[in-house]
Amino acid sequence: MQDWAERHGVALRPHAKAHKCPEVALRQLALGARGICCQKVSEALPFVAAGVRDIHISNEVVGPAKLALLGELARQADISVCVDHPDNLEALAQAMERAGARVTVLVEVDVGQGRCGVTDPQVVLALARRADAAAGLRFGGLQAYHGSVQHMRTQADRAAVCAEVARAAAAHADALRAAGLACPTITGSGTGSAQFDAASGVFTELQAGSYPFMDADYGDNEWAETLRFEPSLYVLSTVMSTPAAGRVVLDAGLKSSTAECGPPRVAGRAGLTYLAANDEHGVARVEPGASAPALGEMVRLVPSHVDPTFNLHDSLVVFRDDVVVDLWPIAARGLSR
Amino acid sequence: MQDWAERHGVALRPHAKAHKCPEVALRQLALGARGICCQKVSEALPFVAAGVRDIHISNEVVGPAKLALLGELARQADISVCVDHPDNLEALAQAMERAGARVTVLVEVDVGQGRCGVTDPQVVLALARRADAAAGLRFGGLQAYHGSVQHMRTQADRAAVCAEVARAAAAHADALRAAGLACPTITGSGTGSAQFDAASGVFTELQAGSYPFMDADYGDNEWAETLRFEPSLYVLSTVMSTPAAGRVVLDAGLKSSTAECGPPRVAGRAGLTYLAANDEHGVARVEPGASAPALGEMVRLVPSHVDPTFNLHDSLVVFRDDVVVDLWPIAARGLSR
Repeated sequence: MQDWAERHGVALRPHAKAHKCPEVALRQLALGARGICCQKVSEALPFVAAGVRDIHISNEVVGPAKLALLGELARQADISVCVDHPDNLEALAQAMERAGARVTVLVEVDVGQGRCGVTDPQVVLALARRADAAAGLRFGGLQAYHGSVQHMRTQADRAAVCAEVARAAAAHADALRAAGLACPTITGSGTGSAQFDAASGVFTELQAGSYPFMDADYGDNEWAETLRFEPSLYVLSTVMSTPAAGRVVLDAGLKSSTAECGPPRVAGRAGLTYLAANDEHGVARVEPGASAPALGEMVRLVPSHVDPTFNLHDSLVVFRDDVVVDLWPIAARGLSR
Repeated sequence: MQDWAERHGVALRPHAKAHKCPEVALRQLALGARGICCQKVSEALPFVAAGVRDIHISNEVVGPAKLALLGELARQADISVCVDHPDNLEALAQAMERAGARVTVLVEVDVGQGRCGVTDPQVVLALARRADAAAGLRFGGLQAYHGSVQHMRTQADRAAVCAEVARAAAAHADALRAAGLACPTITGSGTGSAQFDAASGVFTELQAGSYPFMDADYGDNEWAETLRFEPSLYVLSTVMSTPAAGRVVLDAGLKSSTAECGPPRVAGRAGLTYLAANDEHGVARVEPGASAPALGEMVRLVPSHVDPTFNLHDSLVVFRDDVVVDLWPIAARGLSR
């Protein structure tokens, strides 16, 4: 992903919400990433503590406690944050004044996802001007993220939506520039859309997060030969019951690998299908003709959704050639405020 | 639930997998519970540390590391565990011998769920005899749990399945007794089936777990006047964006309240519907005619599924009459091995 970004002249700012692990972020930075993204202000804490000095909070930060924490972090690192409402912008300016700190403001624009963000260019301009004028704030540009495009299955569908996203983001940036405001940063994108967003000529930064690990949901996308990723993240489970012909039960359920994107997939063992994720059990079918795993056998699972699965675990066991080489704390696990 | 159990002459052994919180378990014991259940051997650790001395691991414990931990715990507390395979029974006996400890064995029978458990009475008998004979083991009876009945919506459907469950459990117990083996414990049940299981005359113990907190999924069940529960568990969220008429975005997504049973429900605020749980966002609709919440307003959410939602959080904020009175660690959070 770093190569892909560099080849297209855009920065990579990997999203740490995916892994919540400073050891991973430090390696991404060592490979050339400009900084990282976090999704929540509390999530940024362990990354700042680990020495990361350039963090974009790719989200609105609302409420006095969170803004006070943002002020603390902004005294220790270069922090940027999204804004989509004038009241939040004023509260942010006051929090920075109290903290004696400064943050960069990116106006979030809604480029089709229908979640947060501004659609009216006049509102974008007003927010940008106010951010440009306020002590403690610095206007940095735009965030234009489209989440639901990431898992559109075909290349053609993703290409079409990404073209719309780029057009909308460029129109907002052009309106700002026409009004005399520089718009140095246009940030967004994800693992599923980076192929198109990097080449759009509009984005200056890619926020992809899942690519180092992948998951079964992303695995179901149609990938280009030029940019494709393989799973590297597994949940190791044990066969805990072999109660009937064709059925085994694994000891990893949805408290070990989340199920909102479907059950995890069994890796490296043909003929074994994980059917249903209960809270603490995984019911699997042994396909006709396949050998049944023995009681106690260990089975690797590919999570269906990497981000919330990392959020269940306290550490990452790092292995190379089937030898455990390190243990990395998932230090931001549970920091969702 | 304690009253209900006592009225029917059965013990309550609340399932701690629901809350993972020793402070809750100690209060359940003080109210008269016989002991608690845990679903994983690691999950039992903080409860033993908190002084709980009677724990049923309502699950098979497979693999040397887990069995060694079980041995350690069995030296400190009265532990029972499920078995459904002779190899696991032998490994369990060896682990207890190594630990110099003793555990009670309950044979898990499959009474219709199709997950773990034995169906053949001859296999049940062989496991029971072996457990009865092995040093370090003590045969305690049967576990007959049916998970999928818990959320059948109508009273009639749950009553019908519970009758089948009770018949199957009684048949296994009768076969053991006919062979000369005592079967003092028949444990099972849950919040959705306790009404019927307590009255069955078959179960000696109820394993209900969700009842102190409830969730939106259980809330959709049809409840009897004689046994019904109200939600007491909320995720407090903040309105972080008000981007368009009729749409607000909350700062609690599926990393704060899991979504495998659907999105959480908004409590105490008519006309606001939580539509979609993203990883860190909740998109909500303001119904026509309802007043829109303001940016920064706090909204209480009822989780759709209490067990995995507790597993996301490190502590429980305890309030009475809207005043925070305590903070209880969710000490078994993440202990899923």
